[in-house]
Amino acid sequence: MRTSIATVSLAGSLSEKLRAAAAAGFDAVEVFEPDLLASPLRPAEVRALAGDLGLAVALFQPFRDPDDVDPAAAARSRERLRHKAALTRELGCDLILVCSSVHAGAVHDDDELAAQLTALADVAAGEGVRLAYEALAWGAHVADYRHGARVVALAGHPALGTCVDSFHVLSRGDDPDDIAGLDKLFFCQVADAPLLGMDVLPWSRHHRLFPGQGGFDLARFQRAVTASGYGGPVSLEVFNDLYRQSDPGRAAVDAARSLRHLADLTAPGTLPAAPSPSGWAFVEVAASAEGAPAVAALLGSLGLARTGAHRRGDVDLWTGGDVRVVVNHRASAERARLSSLGLRSDAPQVLAARARELLAPLVHRPVGPGEAEIPSLVAPDGTWVQFCGDDPDWRGDFLPTGEAATARSFTGIDHVALPQPFAGFDSAGLFLTTVLGMSPGELAEVAAPDGLVRSRAYTSTAGIRIALNVGPTSATLRGRPLASGHVALATTDVLAVVAAFVAAGGEPLPVPVNYHDDLQARFGLDKRFLDALRRHHVLYDRDPDGGEFLHFFTRAVSREFFVEVVERRGGYRGYGAANTPVRLAAQREHPAPGDGSGGGSAQGSRTIRP
Amino acid sequence: MRTSIATVSLAGSLSEKLRAAAAAGFDAVEVFEPDLLASPLRPAEVRALAGDLGLAVALFQPFRDPDDVDPAAAARSRERLRHKAALTRELGCDLILVCSSVHAGAVHDDDELAAQLTALADVAAGEGVRLAYEALAWGAHVADYRHGARVVALAGHPALGTCVDSFHVLSRGDDPDDIAGLDKLFFCQVADAPLLGMDVLPWSRHHRLFPGQGGFDLARFQRAVTASGYGGPVSLEVFNDLYRQSDPGRAAVDAARSLRHLADLTAPGTLPAAPSPSGWAFVEVAASAEGAPAVAALLGSLGLARTGAHRRGDVDLWTGGDVRVVVNHRASAERARLSSLGLRSDAPQVLAARARELLAPLVHRPVGPGEAEIPSLVAPDGTWVQFCGDDPDWRGDFLPTGEAATARSFTGIDHVALPQPFAGFDSAGLFLTTVLGMSPGELAEVAAPDGLVRSRAYTSTAGIRIALNVGPTSATLRGRPLASGHVALATTDVLAVVAAFVAAGGEPLPVPVNYHDDLQARFGLDKRFLDALRRHHVLYDRDPDGGEFLHFFTRAVSREFFVEVVERRGGYRGYGAANTPVRLAAQREHPAPGDGSGGGSAQGSRTIRP
Repeated sequence: MRTSIATVSLAGSLSEKLRAAAAAGFDAVEVFEPDLLASPLRPAEVRALAGDLGLAVALFQPFRDPDDVDPAAAARSRERLRHKAALTRELGCDLILVCSSVHAGAVHDDDELAAQLTALADVAAGEGVRLAYEALAWGAHVADYRHGARVVALAGHPALGTCVDSFHVLSRGDDPDDIAGLDKLFFCQVADAPLLGMDVLPWSRHHRLFPGQGGFDLARFQRAVTASGYGGPVSLEVFNDLYRQSDPGRAAVDAARSLRHLADLTAPGTLPAAPSPSGWAFVEVAASAEGAPAVAALLGSLGLARTGAHRRGDVDLWTGGDVRVVVNHRASAERARLSSLGLRSDAPQVLAARARELLAPLVHRPVGPGEAEIPSLVAPDGTWVQFCGDDPDWRGDFLPTGEAATARSFTGIDHVALPQPFAGFDSAGLFLTTVLGMSPGELAEVAAPDGLVRSRAYTSTAGIRIALNVGPTSATLRGRPLASGHVALATTDVLAVVAAFVAAGGEPLPVPVNYHDDLQARFGLDKRFLDALRRHHVLYDRDPDGGEFLHFFTRAVSREFFVEVVERRGGYRGYGAANTPVRLAAQREHPAPGDGSGGGSAQGSRTIRP
Repeated sequence: MRTSIATVSLAGSLSEKLRAAAAAGFDAVEVFEPDLLASPLRPAEVRALAGDLGLAVALFQPFRDPDDVDPAAAARSRERLRHKAALTRELGCDLILVCSSVHAGAVHDDDELAAQLTALADVAAGEGVRLAYEALAWGAHVADYRHGARVVALAGHPALGTCVDSFHVLSRGDDPDDIAGLDKLFFCQVADAPLLGMDVLPWSRHHRLFPGQGGFDLARFQRAVTASGYGGPVSLEVFNDLYRQSDPGRAAVDAARSLRHLADLTAPGTLPAAPSPSGWAFVEVAASAEGAPAVAALLGSLGLARTGAHRRGDVDLWTGGDVRVVVNHRASAERARLSSLGLRSDAPQVLAARARELLAPLVHRPVGPGEAEIPSLVAPDGTWVQFCGDDPDWRGDFLPTGEAATARSFTGIDHVALPQPFAGFDSAGLFLTTVLGMSPGELAEVAAPDGLVRSRAYTSTAGIRIALNVGPTSATLRGRPLASGHVALATTDVLAVVAAFVAAGGEPLPVPVNYHDDLQARFGLDKRFLDALRRHHVLYDRDPDGGEFLHFFTRAVSREFFVEVVERRGGYRGYGAANTPVRLAAQREHPAPGDGSGGGSAQGSRTIRP
């Protein structure tokens, strides 16, 4: 599959866009006319720059409102096309995208429309250029790609063919399979989108996504394109408010990654298949030497013990039951945060080949004598994802301390939650789905005191769960950090864990009395059970099938590190999202040390007791 | 009109919300249940705090999914209501909002629904509480307020009445006039919203606005409410992503302002009528002593002259034709920016009374001997709006310098453009419409190289035009400022002005050659005319009626100050929005001094030559 991207999909100047597309390995670009008009580069200079970068200019776009019921206006359209065709040649390109008309003067008779398109194709052919006619989903007369193709067939001009765009096809609910029967498919654009109930025009202009980030069945679309015999580039045209303001280099990597993954979905085996990670090895918390003791104190209160010390020092292994937490003291002065996810994997070598194809090359930490090599990826938010085999065992890097954990009831890591930068949410999700093969859950929107928080959990077949959270746009403007980076430990008896935690000097995040009053009203819980929840600030949820979720949070060590302990009963599959507003408000009242003075009625912060 | 606001409309903790509502002068609040559940304040403490602040608790909300086809679930609903009714009494309130059901078990038979609501009303009445039943626009069975009122009538219970919410009525296109005939209207909520083509639920949850900020005819809605004999509070319930993350004190001021303005629209004369400003007196640019010479040099190149010096120094009056620009050197070290708009007004005293009612009290600058007192308002973005009468004449504050302007062709100030903080766009618009009586234009979305820019122009009957601009969320994250603060001077001969400007050493903002090539393709302009535009970087637009717009921009002195010169021909009414992407890209290539290195292909910044 030859890959292309429309320059409108990336931020920056035209030259920045071209450089970003080339760096991400694209074969070609579509030049979006407004990008050219705003550029100091003349068309020939664009051609030269693209050539130097190894990029073809596959298409110039868009030529809008080609036809008109007013003959004089139609003549002006041909004259306009003559200019644009000459320009297209200067770009080193021979194809112009022509959109179906949306204006009041649009022709509504297919024969007349075909005649006008034929006249335009004559003009284009005279300049050595072809036209790819695209049915916009909101076209005045032509909105269905099959209708567009019929008009193209009616015109019967060799320089006139069809362009299909997955958004325009799938947003209308049109069947993409008929694309397989198109015999003059000149160009193919793909975009994904969330399934939103809104007018198709603003949906298209603001909410398009790269393949795999939305809800369209693009593999089916793409299989139909392939079946048509189309051999041209597959080109991304993604209008997205956030990618418009994102670093174009990183966005281009997302774009290329999404397209390579789509190629693999369309024709399985295009990418090396990689086994999904089989479970958690560890999570790693990084803190400065000053910050690490608070992390250690928290883990100790939870009944974990420092059972191992790294051969090269400054890194400890804490264990308890089936939970392993690595505490790395080597970080620079930053606050404690989840820095690395250790996943068990049988085949890191196969994974390496696949990751490289998906533009996520493996990196390797320095390996000391006697240590296991742990191939790793760096996620878009900077978190390392490390793949731990059984032989050699990564635990061999740690020398036993002789200490023993008191906590036996932890059955493993339930999930981790990673805070994302505002424009990085969809990027991180794409990494998890394509590179790690995880499945996205539903988007949750949660009201925090200072704005809405979006959250989405990704799951793997082996039961790995990673939740991504992103705060409101201007959280930093109001100076209140969003507390969301944490690890959730699974237990079979959360009430016993919290009692032991408190007895050991731990402090659960305080939950308002009003919250537990509401639990009683909603669920009619047994009074003694409710009192137990209330006493130790344990939250509760119940799903429609009777599954139950009991969980508490520790006070935060930092805005990016705290611990949740969860107990799932009866097959509960969620994350207690209904409780998240209460948790976020409580964290605002009781912020982590150094994270500001909290809410108006907060009494100031207290540190976790060592 | 007694005024109320739902706590969900404001950011912060519950106590912060109450304080903000009280400070803005509200009479009452609706307590939104999730705010209470997340609060450390017990219901009795909320009641006490509200009482101390002079706020009534008008309503507790929402009670969702009251009815159920399953009798056991209906019984649980009554039990849940018993808890909430007791809680409501603790809040010092006797009214609960009950929403029409949206769940799968919703009752679809009016008689059965009325019976279940009657049973609930019995429970409520037992606790001394009444129920206000609201038809949600997306209710499973009851979605129309008239349907809800019929069910309430069918129940015929004294503790059961109707709640109307303008959003639920007007979002469906329902006729609000029938509200006048309701005989048991227990509560009234108002919210505005932009007219968006999207599903009503997300529209409601994310995009509500305060009255006057959207597209609903709320005066008509409110007149029907008044005609019904309703005498309770009119309460704002505004779910809005940006207000959720805004300072609650400022948002509450917007809220109160919008409600007082709505009262005046509903019953004209409620507020003191104020004559709209009759025209521009001046615009003022503030700069530090170091920054002011660049402003002076720019104005000088445009042919304006420093014709007056302020009696107390450090402030100059520049004039040219019918344009007056005050340059204030007293600013602290910040960059040059438009700091004040001087408007001509005949009746500042009447305006003062109205402004006070709209929570925009007049402020007064210190007045020295022989100076005119200029009553002023401070707009939400900090810009001063000053009202200048004829007697005394503000120009008397300046002593003539004897210099004379060379520019005679400036006919006045065409418009000013003010950049807004991300969450301040709707707030600033409300100030212009309510306090200054201006009319909003259409929202424009413009693609800048680093994200989308939103813009809306406000006009007054006397021809004052003020455009508000707001940049993409993370403009500052990418480190590139949005250049958007400027004054546009009107002329009858822009080509003569730009030629004189260049001859005087001025530098127009460079416009790419590609742009003028496109003008030729689009408009088929006369070659000599096009060459004249191109030579001096003059942009061009034409409206469907043949009106024409010629304009050029100076190089920016700072990101918040540059000058545009515009010529309107044939009744052109716009602002050349089609050219804005080109202007923004050019400003990124040629940033103001000190505003960073610009785009990837920029050659670095050059200063305006003195």
